[in-house]
Amino acid sequence: MPKITFTSDDTSIAVPAGESLLRAAMLADVAVSASCGGNGTCGKCRMVVESGEIETTPTTRLSEPDRARGYVLACLTKAVGDVSVRVPPESRPGAAPSHAHGRRIPNRVLTPEERTTRLPPLTGWAPVSKQAISIALPSLTDNRSDATRLTHALERMGAVRHMMTLDALRELPAAARVAQGSVTTAVWRRPSHAQVLHVEGGDTADRQFALAVDVGTTTVEVALVDLVAGKVVAQAAEYNAQVTRGEDVISRVIAAGTPEGLAELSDLAVRTISKLATRVCAEANVHPEELLAYVTAGNTVMTHLLLSISPAGIRTAPYVPAATTFPRTGAQALGLPAGAHTQLIALPCPASWLGGDVVAGIVAAGVPWSDKLTLFIDVGTNGEIVLGNHEWLVACSCSAGPAFEGGGVLHGMRAAEGAVEQIRIDPETLQPSIITICCERPLGICGSGLIDCVAELFLAGALERSGKFKPDLDSPWVRHGERGLEYVVVRAEDSGTGSDIVLTELDIENLMRAKAAIFAGISVLASSLDVSFSAIEEVVVAGGFGHYLDLERITVLGMLPEIDPGRFTFLGNGSLAGAELISRSTEMLDVAERVAAMTTYLELSVNTGFMDAYISALFLPHTDLRLFPKTEALLAERERERGHGAVD
Amino acid sequence: MPKITFTSDDTSIAVPAGESLLRAAMLADVAVSASCGGNGTCGKCRMVVESGEIETTPTTRLSEPDRARGYVLACLTKAVGDVSVRVPPESRPGAAPSHAHGRRIPNRVLTPEERTTRLPPLTGWAPVSKQAISIALPSLTDNRSDATRLTHALERMGAVRHMMTLDALRELPAAARVAQGSVTTAVWRRPSHAQVLHVEGGDTADRQFALAVDVGTTTVEVALVDLVAGKVVAQAAEYNAQVTRGEDVISRVIAAGTPEGLAELSDLAVRTISKLATRVCAEANVHPEELLAYVTAGNTVMTHLLLSISPAGIRTAPYVPAATTFPRTGAQALGLPAGAHTQLIALPCPASWLGGDVVAGIVAAGVPWSDKLTLFIDVGTNGEIVLGNHEWLVACSCSAGPAFEGGGVLHGMRAAEGAVEQIRIDPETLQPSIITICCERPLGICGSGLIDCVAELFLAGALERSGKFKPDLDSPWVRHGERGLEYVVVRAEDSGTGSDIVLTELDIENLMRAKAAIFAGISVLASSLDVSFSAIEEVVVAGGFGHYLDLERITVLGMLPEIDPGRFTFLGNGSLAGAELISRSTEMLDVAERVAAMTTYLELSVNTGFMDAYISALFLPHTDLRLFPKTEALLAERERERGHGAVD
Repeated sequence: MPKITFTSDDTSIAVPAGESLLRAAMLADVAVSASCGGNGTCGKCRMVVESGEIETTPTTRLSEPDRARGYVLACLTKAVGDVSVRVPPESRPGAAPSHAHGRRIPNRVLTPEERTTRLPPLTGWAPVSKQAISIALPSLTDNRSDATRLTHALERMGAVRHMMTLDALRELPAAARVAQGSVTTAVWRRPSHAQVLHVEGGDTADRQFALAVDVGTTTVEVALVDLVAGKVVAQAAEYNAQVTRGEDVISRVIAAGTPEGLAELSDLAVRTISKLATRVCAEANVHPEELLAYVTAGNTVMTHLLLSISPAGIRTAPYVPAATTFPRTGAQALGLPAGAHTQLIALPCPASWLGGDVVAGIVAAGVPWSDKLTLFIDVGTNGEIVLGNHEWLVACSCSAGPAFEGGGVLHGMRAAEGAVEQIRIDPETLQPSIITICCERPLGICGSGLIDCVAELFLAGALERSGKFKPDLDSPWVRHGERGLEYVVVRAEDSGTGSDIVLTELDIENLMRAKAAIFAGISVLASSLDVSFSAIEEVVVAGGFGHYLDLERITVLGMLPEIDPGRFTFLGNGSLAGAELISRSTEMLDVAERVAAMTTYLELSVNTGFMDAYISALFLPHTDLRLFPKTEALLAERERERGHGAVD
Repeated sequence: MPKITFTSDDTSIAVPAGESLLRAAMLADVAVSASCGGNGTCGKCRMVVESGEIETTPTTRLSEPDRARGYVLACLTKAVGDVSVRVPPESRPGAAPSHAHGRRIPNRVLTPEERTTRLPPLTGWAPVSKQAISIALPSLTDNRSDATRLTHALERMGAVRHMMTLDALRELPAAARVAQGSVTTAVWRRPSHAQVLHVEGGDTADRQFALAVDVGTTTVEVALVDLVAGKVVAQAAEYNAQVTRGEDVISRVIAAGTPEGLAELSDLAVRTISKLATRVCAEANVHPEELLAYVTAGNTVMTHLLLSISPAGIRTAPYVPAATTFPRTGAQALGLPAGAHTQLIALPCPASWLGGDVVAGIVAAGVPWSDKLTLFIDVGTNGEIVLGNHEWLVACSCSAGPAFEGGGVLHGMRAAEGAVEQIRIDPETLQPSIITICCERPLGICGSGLIDCVAELFLAGALERSGKFKPDLDSPWVRHGERGLEYVVVRAEDSGTGSDIVLTELDIENLMRAKAAIFAGISVLASSLDVSFSAIEEVVVAGGFGHYLDLERITVLGMLPEIDPGRFTFLGNGSLAGAELISRSTEMLDVAERVAAMTTYLELSVNTGFMDAYISALFLPHTDLRLFPKTEALLAERERERGHGAVD
C-alpha cells in the first residue's frame, strides 16, 4: 500500500493502491475542500505533489502554470508509490482541524485466507460431490444388480447406506458399460445416509463445481466454486430483479400476496440467479450441467420467494414463516441452468427475521468454533444481531428501517454510483467535504454518508443530543427549508441532480430511530445473557455496511457500544462466504443446520426490555453517557477546541 | 352351486352357477362327444334333461321332436337349480370310461376373505395415507413456523421425524388458513421417518384411495382400493399395450435396446395403466388426484420398463438387472393420472427372473407368517418357484419357455376366446372331446388344454414315456403330418380357423421340456434344503395358470411332484392381491421388502444339480417312477382296462 505523506499537516497514511489522494486525505482527516463528490468538476481539491510518482487525469480545472508547479486535483490523482503532497491554503475548507482524535484507515475486510484461519480445516466430502469408482463386473457367481454392486462399492468407502435416485438408476446400465465398470457418481451425503444422484461412464471426478448464491433483497451475488481445487473460480453480482416489485422485503411480501405474484417473484429471483450462473459458468468454461449444487443463503423472505413458498405470515404478527428448514430440491425443476441431478440447498432460516444469510455469515465468521463471546452484526434494512460462541447463540432482528440503505431519508439512496459515502464537516463553518461512490457527481447520500454526516454535525456542535439542530447556528450550510431545518450536503451547482442535496431534521430523526433500534437490540441480547459490553471479545461486522463503517463515528452516533476497535472484524459478504464453505463441505452444512437449530431467537416486539432500551438510545450517543466514556471525552475536547477557536 | 346328476353314469357333480352341462360332464369325467369347442355348431353333445330347471339357447341342431323329448345340447345348456340328465348312447365318443380314477372339481380360488384369514390383521397406516390434524395457531409466544407446528403435531402421533416436501410446503400457508388450522395431510411413512407430501385445508381424510397394479407381461390388472373402507371398489384388466412390441419378456428387452425403444415401451406400459386407472376411478367416482399411491407388482423386466430403466442386462449371462429395489417416485412424473403428491411404489424384485409380482404373491399367500413348509408356484413363460416359510425363502426361476402360454406349439395360443382349454380323450378310439374358452369355435390350444392333451394321450396309452407316439396306433386321430406324427384335436370342419388343429410330436417335446424344467426347479430347491416332497405342507399355485389346472393330469405329466391335493391352495392373482395389501399397510410394505431381501435366489444355469434333475424329468411322468407312486398305479389300472377292452 502506497504511503501518502501530507507535509502540510505533518501526517501520513497508507492506502490501498488506486485510492485517490482525496480519499487518502479524508481517511487521514486532512481537511480538503471537495463538493462535487470527487469527479473533478468543482476543482477545489488542489494539492501540490512534492515527491513520488503519481498518476493523474488531465483536467481543464488547472492552469498550465499550476500544473508546471506540481498542482493536481486530489480526486483525479493516485499515488503509484509513496508520495509527499502539500495541501495549499486555498484548498482548506476552513481552519485546519486538530488531529488529536486520531485517524482511521479503511476497514480491512478479511481475505479468504484470513477467513480460513478462523475455521477448522475443511476435510471430507462436499454435500454433493463426485466419486469415481470401479463397479465389480457381474458374474454368474456375483449376480447382484448393477445398483447393488455400485452402492456396495460406495458403502465400502462411506459407511452410510446409499440409495439411488430413479434418474441415476436410468443412467447406470449404460454408464457401467462405457469403461468396464469405471463410473463416476454424483452423491448427496448426509451423516445418516447418502443418495446417488447421477452416474456417468469413466472418471470425470476432476470436474466438480458448485454455485454459492447470496440471495440479497437488493443484490444477488454468486461465486462459482471449483470443489476439486477448493476455491472460487468466478464471481458475479447483479441487482435482484425483484427490486422492480418493491425495494424492501415487506413490499416483496405484499407483491407475493397472490399466487401469480408469488410465481412472478420466484421467477424474477430465478432469472437473476440464472443470469449470474450462466455468466460465471461461461467465464470459467464450466457447463451448467457440471454444477453439483446451488447453495443459497437468503433472508427468510428471499428464501421463501425463491422456492415459491408464500411468505405472507412473516409480515404480520405473530410473524411466522411457512418454514424454517427447506427440503433439498432439484435446481432444474426451479428453472435454474443445471443438470437433472443438480441440487438446490437452501440454507435454513432460524426465524422470520433471521435468515440463512445470517446463518451462513455465522459459519463463515467461525463463530461455531469460537470460544470468544462474539457479537455478529449484519445491518441492512434489518439489523440482524447475534451474540454467542460455539456453545450458544442468541439472536434478534431490529427493524432498523431502510435509513441505512438510504430509504426514509429525503436524499437518501442505495450505495450506488454517485452516492455520497464519506463526509467531513469543518467544525467552524460547517462546510462539508464529500466523496461519492465512483467519484460520480453526487446524486444522494448512502448509509455510510448519512452516518458520517450526523456524527460530524454532532461533533461540530451543530446538533443537540436529541438530534435536533442547535438554535441560531451561524452557517450558510444550515438553513430553514420546506421541511424545517436542514443541512446542505451538496449545493445544486455541484450535484448531479441539479438541486441541493440536503439532510433534514426529519432524516436525522429516522436515522436516530434506526441506530437506537440496533443499540437496543444489542443491549437486550447482552442483558438477556447478563453480560456487559466489555465482555464482548469480538465484534464481527458482516455485509457491505461494514466496508466504510467509521467505527469512531458509529460510536459517536451511539449505534454500537464502545468496544475496542481492535476487537472488530470486518467479514465482508459473509452470506456468500458461508454458502461457499457449505457448498464445499458436508460438515459445514451440518454446522449450518446446527447453528439454525441452536439459535435462540428473541422476538423484540414482545420483549419487555426492548422498548425501554430503545427510548434510552434515542439520544446522541445515548441517554446514559457513562456507557460512552470515550465519546464523552471526545465531545468535551471538541467543545474545548470550539471555545479556543472562538477565543482566537 | 347347482348339482348335476348324470343318471346314465351314476355320478353327480356340483358346478358353479352358469357352467354348461358340457363342462360339468367333462369335470365329472362323463364321456361326451364335443368337437366344436362348445359353441353349439357340431351338435354332438346331446343330453336328455330328466328333471330340474335349465336354461338353454335355442339351436337348429335339435329337431322339434327331440326338443319335446327333453333333448338339449349340453354346451348350450345351464342348470338353474339341481338337475338330472342322461347322456344318450349317440353322444358317447366311444365306450363309457371307467370312473375309478376319481373326478375333479374346478380349482377353487381363495376368496379375498379366505386370503385375509392367512394374514395377520392389517393395522396401522397405509404407506401413503391421509391424516387430518389441527395445527396450533401461531402466537407471539409460539412463533414456530407453520411447517414446524404441523410436523410437531404429526410427530406427537407418529413417533418418527416428519419432513415436508417442497410441494407440501408450498401448499401449507394457504391450507392452514382455510379452516382455522384444520388441515389434512398426505404422509409417506416408513419405520424410520415420514414425509408430508401434500396438505389441504379442512378434513378430507374420508377420501383415501390407492391403485394396486399387477403389471403382467401379457395383461395389466388394477384394483382401486378404498383405504378407509379397506376394500377394493373397482377392478379392471387390459392387455399390456407392450404386446405389440413382442409377446414375451425377452422380445420386450430386445425392443428396449435403444433409448427410443425403452422410452416407447415405458410409455406403452404407462398408457395401459393410465387407461385402467382412469376407468376404475370413473367407475368409483374417484378423481385421480385423490389417489395417494400406485403400488405396482411386476416381474423384473416389466418393472424396469415401467420406470424406464434399461433391462438389457437381464437378457444375457450373467443375467443381472440394473436394480432390484426401486426408489419411490412421483406417479405424475411418469405420466400417470395422479395428483402431484401421488406416489408410485414399485415392489422390489429379488432377481432378474424373480420379480415384484412373486414378492407380492408371497405376501398375499401369507407365506411370511406361515410355519408350514410352503411351495409357491407361479407358472407363465417362466416358472417362478419359491420354497420356504416365515423364516427363510429360497427361489428359482425356470425358463419353462412359452409352451404353457401356447408359444412354441404349432397350434398353441394364449388363454383367450376360442382356445381349447379342456380335453378328454376316449381311451379306445382316441377321439377328443373339447371345450374352448367362451365356447367359441376352436382357434388353437392354450396351456391347460395342452397339459390335458398330453396327459390324456399318455393315460390312453398313445404315448411312450419319452413323450413319443407309440408306433402303429390304430386311430383316425393320430396321423403322419408334414411335421411327423400328430394328434388331431379339432378337425377343420369344426375349427374356427378352417384347418385342423393338431398337436405334433415336436409340440409334445416342447411341453416335456417345459414341465421338466419346472419339476427340476422344484427338485433343486427341495434338495438344496434337504427336504423331501412329502415334507411340503402346502402348495400355493398363483396366477391364471392355476385356475383350471388339473392336479391329476399335471401329476401324470410329472410337472409337479405327487402331493396330496388337499395341500393345494389356488391363490388367483397373487400379484394384484399382494399389491392391494401393500397399498393398505406400511407393515405389508416392510414385509415385502423383507421378503425381497431375505429370498435366496438360486441361479439354475450355474446349478450343477439342475441339469441332472432336468434330464431325469424329461419322461412321463419321470425317469424314476418311484417318485410318482399314484401315477404308476393309475397307469397300471388304465393298462388293465385297455387290456380288458381289447378282450371284451
